[in-house]
Amino acid sequence: MDPQANSSIEDSVKEACGIFGVFDHENAVELAYYGLYALQHRGQESAGIACLMDGRIKSYLGMGLVGEVFRDEFFAKFKSRHAIGHTRYSTAGSSNIRNAQPITIDYAGGQISVAHNGNVTNGWRLRRELEEQGSIFQTTSDSEVVLHLLARPEIRSQPDPIAAALRRLQGAFCFIFLTPEGIIAARDENGFRPLVLARLGPATLVASETCAFDMLGAEYLGEVAPGEIVRIDARGITRSRYAESKRVSHCIFEHVYFARPDSRVFNQNVHLVRKAFGRQLALEAPAQADLVVPVPDSGNSAAQGYSEQSGIPLEQGFIRNHYVGRTFIQPSQGQRDIGVKIKLNAVRDVVKGRRVVVIDDSIIRGTTSKGRVRRLRDAGAKEIHLRISCPPTRHPCFYGIDFPDPKELIANQMGSVEAICRFLEIDSLAYLSVEGMLKAMDKPGNFCAACFTGDYPVEYDAEFDKNAMEGARARR
Amino acid sequence: MDPQANSSIEDSVKEACGIFGVFDHENAVELAYYGLYALQHRGQESAGIACLMDGRIKSYLGMGLVGEVFRDEFFAKFKSRHAIGHTRYSTAGSSNIRNAQPITIDYAGGQISVAHNGNVTNGWRLRRELEEQGSIFQTTSDSEVVLHLLARPEIRSQPDPIAAALRRLQGAFCFIFLTPEGIIAARDENGFRPLVLARLGPATLVASETCAFDMLGAEYLGEVAPGEIVRIDARGITRSRYAESKRVSHCIFEHVYFARPDSRVFNQNVHLVRKAFGRQLALEAPAQADLVVPVPDSGNSAAQGYSEQSGIPLEQGFIRNHYVGRTFIQPSQGQRDIGVKIKLNAVRDVVKGRRVVVIDDSIIRGTTSKGRVRRLRDAGAKEIHLRISCPPTRHPCFYGIDFPDPKELIANQMGSVEAICRFLEIDSLAYLSVEGMLKAMDKPGNFCAACFTGDYPVEYDAEFDKNAMEGARARR
Amino acid sequence: MDPQANSSIEDSVKEACGIFGVFDHENAVELAYYGLYALQHRGQESAGIACLMDGRIKSYLGMGLVGEVFRDEFFAKFKSRHAIGHTRYSTAGSSNIRNAQPITIDYAGGQISVAHNGNVTNGWRLRRELEEQGSIFQTTSDSEVVLHLLARPEIRSQPDPIAAALRRLQGAFCFIFLTPEGIIAARDENGFRPLVLARLGPATLVASETCAFDMLGAEYLGEVAPGEIVRIDARGITRSRYAESKRVSHCIFEHVYFARPDSRVFNQNVHLVRKAFGRQLALEAPAQADLVVPVPDSGNSAAQGYSEQSGIPLEQGFIRNHYVGRTFIQPSQGQRDIGVKIKLNAVRDVVKGRRVVVIDDSIIRGTTSKGRVRRLRDAGAKEIHLRISCPPTRHPCFYGIDFPDPKELIANQMGSVEAICRFLEIDSLAYLSVEGMLKAMDKPGNFCAACFTGDYPVEYDAEFDKNAMEGARARR
Amino acid sequence: MDPQANSSIEDSVKEACGIFGVFDHENAVELAYYGLYALQHRGQESAGIACLMDGRIKSYLGMGLVGEVFRDEFFAKFKSRHAIGHTRYSTAGSSNIRNAQPITIDYAGGQISVAHNGNVTNGWRLRRELEEQGSIFQTTSDSEVVLHLLARPEIRSQPDPIAAALRRLQGAFCFIFLTPEGIIAARDENGFRPLVLARLGPATLVASETCAFDMLGAEYLGEVAPGEIVRIDARGITRSRYAESKRVSHCIFEHVYFARPDSRVFNQNVHLVRKAFGRQLALEAPAQADLVVPVPDSGNSAAQGYSEQSGIPLEQGFIRNHYVGRTFIQPSQGQRDIGVKIKLNAVRDVVKGRRVVVIDDSIIRGTTSKGRVRRLRDAGAKEIHLRISCPPTRHPCFYGIDFPDPKELIANQMGSVEAICRFLEIDSLAYLSVEGMLKAMDKPGNFCAACFTGDYPVEYDAEFDKNAMEGARARR
Repeated sequence: MDPQANSSIEDSVKEACGIFGVFDHENAVELAYYGLYALQHRGQESAGIACLMDGRIKSYLGMGLVGEVFRDEFFAKFKSRHAIGHTRYSTAGSSNIRNAQPITIDYAGGQISVAHNGNVTNGWRLRRELEEQGSIFQTTSDSEVVLHLLARPEIRSQPDPIAAALRRLQGAFCFIFLTPEGIIAARDENGFRPLVLARLGPATLVASETCAFDMLGAEYLGEVAPGEIVRIDARGITRSRYAESKRVSHCIFEHVYFARPDSRVFNQNVHLVRKAFGRQLALEAPAQADLVVPVPDSGNSAAQGYSEQSGIPLEQGFIRNHYVGRTFIQPSQGQRDIGVKIKLNAVRDVVKGRRVVVIDDSIIRGTTSKGRVRRLRDAGAKEIHLRISCPPTRHPCFYGIDFPDPKELIANQMGSVEAICRFLEIDSLAYLSVEGMLKAMDKPGNFCAACFTGDYPVEYDAEFDKNAMEGARARR
Repeated sequence: MDPQANSSIEDSVKEACGIFGVFDHENAVELAYYGLYALQHRGQESAGIACLMDGRIKSYLGMGLVGEVFRDEFFAKFKSRHAIGHTRYSTAGSSNIRNAQPITIDYAGGQISVAHNGNVTNGWRLRRELEEQGSIFQTTSDSEVVLHLLARPEIRSQPDPIAAALRRLQGAFCFIFLTPEGIIAARDENGFRPLVLARLGPATLVASETCAFDMLGAEYLGEVAPGEIVRIDARGITRSRYAESKRVSHCIFEHVYFARPDSRVFNQNVHLVRKAFGRQLALEAPAQADLVVPVPDSGNSAAQGYSEQSGIPLEQGFIRNHYVGRTFIQPSQGQRDIGVKIKLNAVRDVVKGRRVVVIDDSIIRGTTSKGRVRRLRDAGAKEIHLRISCPPTRHPCFYGIDFPDPKELIANQMGSVEAICRFLEIDSLAYLSVEGMLKAMDKPGNFCAACFTGDYPVEYDAEFDKNAMEGARARR
Repeated sequence: MDPQANSSIEDSVKEACGIFGVFDHENAVELAYYGLYALQHRGQESAGIACLMDGRIKSYLGMGLVGEVFRDEFFAKFKSRHAIGHTRYSTAGSSNIRNAQPITIDYAGGQISVAHNGNVTNGWRLRRELEEQGSIFQTTSDSEVVLHLLARPEIRSQPDPIAAALRRLQGAFCFIFLTPEGIIAARDENGFRPLVLARLGPATLVASETCAFDMLGAEYLGEVAPGEIVRIDARGITRSRYAESKRVSHCIFEHVYFARPDSRVFNQNVHLVRKAFGRQLALEAPAQADLVVPVPDSGNSAAQGYSEQSGIPLEQGFIRNHYVGRTFIQPSQGQRDIGVKIKLNAVRDVVKGRRVVVIDDSIIRGTTSKGRVRRLRDAGAKEIHLRISCPPTRHPCFYGIDFPDPKELIANQMGSVEAICRFLEIDSLAYLSVEGMLKAMDKPGNFCAACFTGDYPVEYDAEFDKNAMEGARARR
Repeated sequence: MDPQANSSIEDSVKEACGIFGVFDHENAVELAYYGLYALQHRGQESAGIACLMDGRIKSYLGMGLVGEVFRDEFFAKFKSRHAIGHTRYSTAGSSNIRNAQPITIDYAGGQISVAHNGNVTNGWRLRRELEEQGSIFQTTSDSEVVLHLLARPEIRSQPDPIAAALRRLQGAFCFIFLTPEGIIAARDENGFRPLVLARLGPATLVASETCAFDMLGAEYLGEVAPGEIVRIDARGITRSRYAESKRVSHCIFEHVYFARPDSRVFNQNVHLVRKAFGRQLALEAPAQADLVVPVPDSGNSAAQGYSEQSGIPLEQGFIRNHYVGRTFIQPSQGQRDIGVKIKLNAVRDVVKGRRVVVIDDSIIRGTTSKGRVRRLRDAGAKEIHLRISCPPTRHPCFYGIDFPDPKELIANQMGSVEAICRFLEIDSLAYLSVEGMLKAMDKPGNFCAACFTGDYPVEYDAEFDKNAMEGARARR
């Protein structure tokens, strides 16, 4: 039994998550498990499933991957027709079972459970307000706020308490609630994060990405719309708006980096979007080279596009070691960069003496990229031209993706592309332009690219949050 | 990593617990660990420690024994001068990390952590009332109620919010709170459960039993008084009353069964009290026999008293297998009662052909006792006279000890002592009388013996709780 | 602590393995760990490292992946300049720590440890002979035989006992021995399995594949020759022949399936060989199609060759779920083929309405392939043309690769390619020809393709072994 | 999965062990499990069971306690009518799965498995001789020697190979063999270690101590005689002598310290023998005191005897913490002697102001005893008189009990009883005399007391072994 550290305030990182819901399937708990498996890339830190048994919600939460958390004993005990699941990611080191979801509570309205993906930008303000009224917080997650709102008498007394609670929230959120009556899915009015519906026989499914449906053979029904509440219960599916969607601003980084290539996200296939990024990149930043080499697997789709557009043949210049996973220990002594080397090996007989265009989907801090191109150089590559299938990442995300501190981003640290190029010790470097990136999208105006541009579609009072957190600490 | 099941309402068992606090010691976290080790007998299901680091409370909780929960990595990360700890016991099977303590929260007053031993008898009423006002409950523990009370604006605004919150509670409770300022110990006005103070150099310690002090070489300072709040912070130790103690009613079952024999509990040594029980038992229920044999280790002290009073020599007729612990698996097929046999073996060469007085501290359901005396019979004992060093257990405890359902207690099932004697297939059976038991106590009037007599010192609306729980379920 | 089942005779499967050795490096144990990580694809069942400490051999063995077996405590305790390592694979279910390697023994010559890759075809005969002379066998591995031979007085007394022992063996074997003097590498006279040398500063390395060298930045020195013994000790590197190599017969299946694409095996890069297989396949078995889709990652290289030769564009029609690993549990109830689906998803927006050429490296039993092509069909592929980059697998391997029973191989079960095509419910199916496959090799005559042709380069008395095993059982 | 370190030569400690065998019971594997549970005190390092399934021996071995090694999956897979088991103890730190027993081998005679308790004093000589003939050793256990002997052609060809092999051995050994035909129990001609037989319905049981029979309700049949071989197979029980027993020399330390008090060992009950030690001690070394206090549980029986003989009342002055087990971690910083304190607490209200006779069964290094008596002093004891129920331990045991190096024994370090008394800071100290100790035995002449007297009944060439070991190391 592995105990869990709980440190209340400090680990308030914003996490990206995967969420999944099933209503009315004889193997709902199993489907939730499979669904979370397909959404594992959205969060590897903890996983949980809540389901209805004999009219009461039971949940099972654990730290680790889906396949580690749910074992035989879970399936033996948890049987239900209705279930929701959550998989959570935190870039910070603080593993914390208290922050695992779904969160299940008792309140005056009975019992309710919630799984959340996103970031409530006014979470700290609401938290302070709720605390003034007597609420106590047991997690550092902004997801707890919505449950406290639901429990407030002034909201509980309204005709549609869920809608009333959601109207108090700002920012990015996809919620799946489980109640003794059924499942409720809701999405913020900007539609920052994806949330999709499907049908499987009598059952209705909700998920962060369509890849969770494919595996189950479910029929895709489309997105939960921005500002929409979808109730799925014994009366069927009831769709309503709790807010008018004034400005849709889907997260472009889902397509750039985060979502699985086989998913439809915001109604476009991710792989094909990434291929279009690669084609555009070839137009914007051509190179005189012998080979196009993707960084596997992150650069695969864009490299294919770049190769097709440029006519430079695609080659597997890197080979991944599939066995290097979470269990990798770097013994303290010895070689420093062996961690990179052990995961990705350059194929000498492919790259030796060649001019290589390397395609990757992003450069964050730069150290990993540097290690990779050095491997190519060591394997004998004559020239290395790095092409990145998105613009330089410079700004924090307030809507659910946790970037490192802006000061640590190489695009901010180095200033110019030339400086980064020198740092990486390569022959040329180019990023895709913001305009070029948005060209790949069917509706370019419907996207948030704030991490590249700094243009935030929803106000965020970073100063307030900083003060709130520091104030919270100071009071102690 | 072992995941934790969480089922919100059903596992509302009342648990007995051990609690410990340290203020101002350079190794406070270590002392808490040792203290919990000494209090392990009060709860084996989960353990937790909360401490102050850089002005913030950090906690570490886990399922299992103290020695399983706290390992090297814990001690590497948790260093503090102030800490509280908790070890929890639940007779029900539902292991639930959510119910582990200390519980740590953020609220409008800052941060606070609590460790609780006892049972708040009006917990369900308060819970319903708090839920009406907007509180949400994440555990099924009644300990969460006191934190919600503390967070209420009407209580927060009072000059002494802790006192105000405690005045709302009924029943049995010992609390140790940890705040960024220090430690606060409090005990219900009846003094149901033990809570004691000690000094160790500059440090002040609080614990459920004195055995936790001995090991550390700390100097015993006496009890936290019924109705008292003891604040330990930078200004020293401040003692005050939040309530007048009208009727002291210490739990006699602590002496009968629960506390460690080397502890002083309610200012009497447990071993000596049990020996006095045994002496009295010999007076009340003599036997013509060759040997007095304790059931180890529960009957050791009383058997010694019985032997001394009766002049019948004490003998080790049973030997415990110290290796049979929590890891014991009973393979499905095969002998039924091997579980009893493997734990306790009768010594043939000691008991063969002898008339044996067996001393034990209680009979609960009767099946375990039956197995034990059969072992003696199989080993050749000629006569078996069972003497129990307390009266028959017939009534539920509402103050923090979790008995089986009254219907399952053998004293209720069988009705008469004769019937139990026949069921156990022994030659005679006698229990200590209530009056005889209380004779061993310095202040017989200060004890609650409700589990034997049904005379409850604090009203308890069992009907309300039952309805509340069922209502809670029905709403869902 | 996880106990290990040991069943002596029954699990006599022939395993493929990865072996690694380091002589004279300050971090030899670490290098062995990294080397085994790179060779993990050659064996995932157990791993072990033996090293010299204070003149004595110490070993550490465990069941599981390299990253699971070697943890911090191992690195804390094992420090050496000389080490050998082994990673072992068994397709049968019997995990058995007794069969883990390196095997370390005491004998009249002192201490010796061995790591083995291959299969000694006269192992059972030798075993019977050795048993007659008084040897006892503690493992079911044929690797134990060589140690017993070394210990025999008549071999020990020869000028070169290792050479004398090896001359008794037939079949496929690469050995790395560790003795208090140094490391000895040896390879059978046919050169069935790969074994390569490298230099890293003062250190000499031995490994199954070159990918283990790249990561460490070591300089490739070439192969241990068939029939060669390479001694690496304080006097330097001494190379000698223990046998003349009459017929070189490298295992073609290393290139087809087993080795890592970034390795040089038998002095050719695996990825480029596979690409050549794909080109040849396009010539032998063209298809009218819109896309070439590899089964990732096994079909990647060949698909690239097929696409380049045919001019049909390459597309990522399948996406792997990288999180589905050894932890995957299939709950008992529910969908049957979810195991395949969860690992590999077809990308609907890529394949819908298209004619697809699917490239894979083999079909063994056929069920996995069938699941995969059905996924494409479900995702809307109009036509499916499966192309396999090797000939049909029909015959058992006696030289170290463990195929299923020939009766279970689909090529034997179905008889004709047409029948397999109907079984898979696809539009066309073609395999690469034996001649076409060998065209890709620099020295086509130096390969064993017995698993495709049944033409075995070294006699193997399968009947004897069967009788020996049954006899062994019958005696009991 | 926890990997196992294997270091071939260095951990050649002599271990005491518990062994158990069952022939012809439908739940033989279960019985072996229960039997090992009862014998757990004889070895806590590893446990193993071998059984016959379909005519072949299967074994399951693991590091740790019986309850940790054998879990549900074991019972699901291992079903047999015939089984043997082993539990092993090593005082040295080297946990080593390779040394776990039963050891199972293939040899020219088929398959055989062995469980051993004792120490073969000519083990190293035989090992060297066998190595010269070509044997290889995979463990450091002397138990492997008997299997090699059995496999030698010159022994295999004799009419009774087991007898022939045993005749080659010197020293202390109880063996239980499992073959496809049945079970064979054998005991050395001196009868150093106990080995007993019982009947349970149709089944025959063999065990180290009778406590393993009681639990199963089996009928005790008596000892395997010194020099006897007992074969239990389809033909029934066949008893024969392989050697004449010239001098019986049972290990007195089994009664002093090692065996369980409820066992019959060498046909006397251990508890009653220890009580007699206590009576004799009271005669030899009386004390003016108020209380007799046993060190629990090791001093319990002798303290009872001392109290009865002296008339000084017995009291529980120490209380054990039953939860301090193998999981106890001592954090690095902080109090040194907390380890002792946490395990054993002195009862202040019992000992304060009293003159106490403390009874224990031995003093080995002295540090533990010193910690214990200091606890009594801290708790207020006025005088402390320590009485030890055996003579001073001064000499190594070559027959299966692993004492610390003689230089570390306090009796050797301090020289005189007075010096030890000063070191322990107590008021008086006395040991039982050798003569007094032997008075308690029915046949005083049949015991080995060499650890007290240095009079070894079987020659042991310690010099040879030392040289053999060093030679073995030097060769490397």
